[in-house]
Amino acid sequence: MSIIGVGLLGGSIGLAVKSAAMPCRVVGYGHRRSTLDKALASGAIDEAADGLAEAVKGADFVILCTPVGSFRQNLKDIAPALAEGAVVTDVGSTKRSVVRAAAELLPKHAKFVGSHPMAGSEKRGVDFARADLFAGARCILTPDASTDRDALASVESFWQALGMTTTRLSPDEHDRLVCDISHLPHALAASLVSMQDDAALPLAGKGFLDATRIAGGDGALWRDIFLDNRDHLATSVNHFRAALDELLALLDPARADELAKWLDAASARRAALLAQKLKEMNPD
Amino acid sequence: MSIIGVGLLGGSIGLAVKSAAMPCRVVGYGHRRSTLDKALASGAIDEAADGLAEAVKGADFVILCTPVGSFRQNLKDIAPALAEGAVVTDVGSTKRSVVRAAAELLPKHAKFVGSHPMAGSEKRGVDFARADLFAGARCILTPDASTDRDALASVESFWQALGMTTTRLSPDEHDRLVCDISHLPHALAASLVSMQDDAALPLAGKGFLDATRIAGGDGALWRDIFLDNRDHLATSVNHFRAALDELLALLDPARADELAKWLDAASARRAALLAQKLKEMNPD
Repeated sequence: MSIIGVGLLGGSIGLAVKSAAMPCRVVGYGHRRSTLDKALASGAIDEAADGLAEAVKGADFVILCTPVGSFRQNLKDIAPALAEGAVVTDVGSTKRSVVRAAAELLPKHAKFVGSHPMAGSEKRGVDFARADLFAGARCILTPDASTDRDALASVESFWQALGMTTTRLSPDEHDRLVCDISHLPHALAASLVSMQDDAALPLAGKGFLDATRIAGGDGALWRDIFLDNRDHLATSVNHFRAALDELLALLDPARADELAKWLDAASARRAALLAQKLKEMNPD
Repeated sequence: MSIIGVGLLGGSIGLAVKSAAMPCRVVGYGHRRSTLDKALASGAIDEAADGLAEAVKGADFVILCTPVGSFRQNLKDIAPALAEGAVVTDVGSTKRSVVRAAAELLPKHAKFVGSHPMAGSEKRGVDFARADLFAGARCILTPDASTDRDALASVESFWQALGMTTTRLSPDEHDRLVCDISHLPHALAASLVSMQDDAALPLAGKGFLDATRIAGGDGALWRDIFLDNRDHLATSVNHFRAALDELLALLDPARADELAKWLDAASARRAALLAQKLKEMNPD
């Protein structure tokens, strides 16, 4: 198999594949030689390729682990070298654009299936790669009418072998829901950090640090995601504003009971979500 | 000393006072007998009082640990029973209203100093009280022109003996800055949970859970804080909206570089804050 981009996710996939004792040779490609050397040294990859075409030559399974903004160029570069029947997937946080680009750019004899393993960290790079990054987390697959069903099944099996629970959504449904639950929270956290007065920051406690942890990510990575999903992000922000306006309208002593109920409902909803997530992670 | 309200904060103060081996008898008051019994059993208080007046009789130091919305009534109830020279403080998350109410309601022979120990949890109640809740955290004191300087020094010493770093701010400055760094994040987290589609919640990962942890608090407690600080909260929300609008304006492929820079600036600002906080907590 070939891993294109051996950063946090690509490196972790390599380590997880080794840890799951999958009988395959892992070829890695990255544009920095130092990263490839680290990936070789940690055992995340067995072999480093000098180019994208070389990396995928003869591979039956190819995973794009580069930033969302690089996918189009990556697909162009690997297309001529893909083997007959090669299954290609990715780990991007947005899915409409990569599914469209794959349909346009890949040869008919290759089978693309979009994946979004929902695991990661605000840390970046192969230095933070871990074999257990994916264990217990969810992976969304985004087949459409043209997706090869055997390829879909094999990509699902791959993520399941890494300990993930798989779910299917259409590319558009994925981009809409993930925007609400992941891209919007990032936009809010970054805005919350940006708007603070210098005098307020020293007063930050654990609550503020937790609430803004996701804003600690890499700017270029999130720029790609935000730009690619900007239509849904604008809609998510509008929904969010409506909820915030609802709360502001309750900031009235005459509506104190409604305000407490509204806050309790949010608190209970989050508690139920946390309980559900803990159950998923520890099924027994 | 007297602790009025032996929940998470009041109970933790009692335990911390014992842990610091302060030579004082702790009298606790709470409106539920079961809570007082638990506080007695855990050693958070030495004695349970049946009424507010009884709880403060003869005490040299009184701490209000009830919700912000109860302070006015508590001050009325304890006023006639306060000893000559008694120092009264509180642990409320808003400060203008309690400072005003104390000036209006307490006798001249008692000395009020507003405190806001910035420690806590989304958990509530004496069951979650811990002797080390305050260690390493910050306590803001909010003296004004009429505050007795000796009383201020003794309240500062008290929090420092519990391991806190103390800071002074005017009541209004406190309410404004704490609104930005604490009340606003709570409002955003609760709105973020409320606006989610049922289909999006199962896709939530660790990032979403962290970002919304603060929304897990008690509705009535936060209702009091939000209503008491509603003018500042409206202003904070407007500042936040301006930051979010700035981000939305950058969601344009033609401004991709600016967008990445804006996101990197937020990321760097949070990283610097985290480094500073870690240094404060582990000074060596």
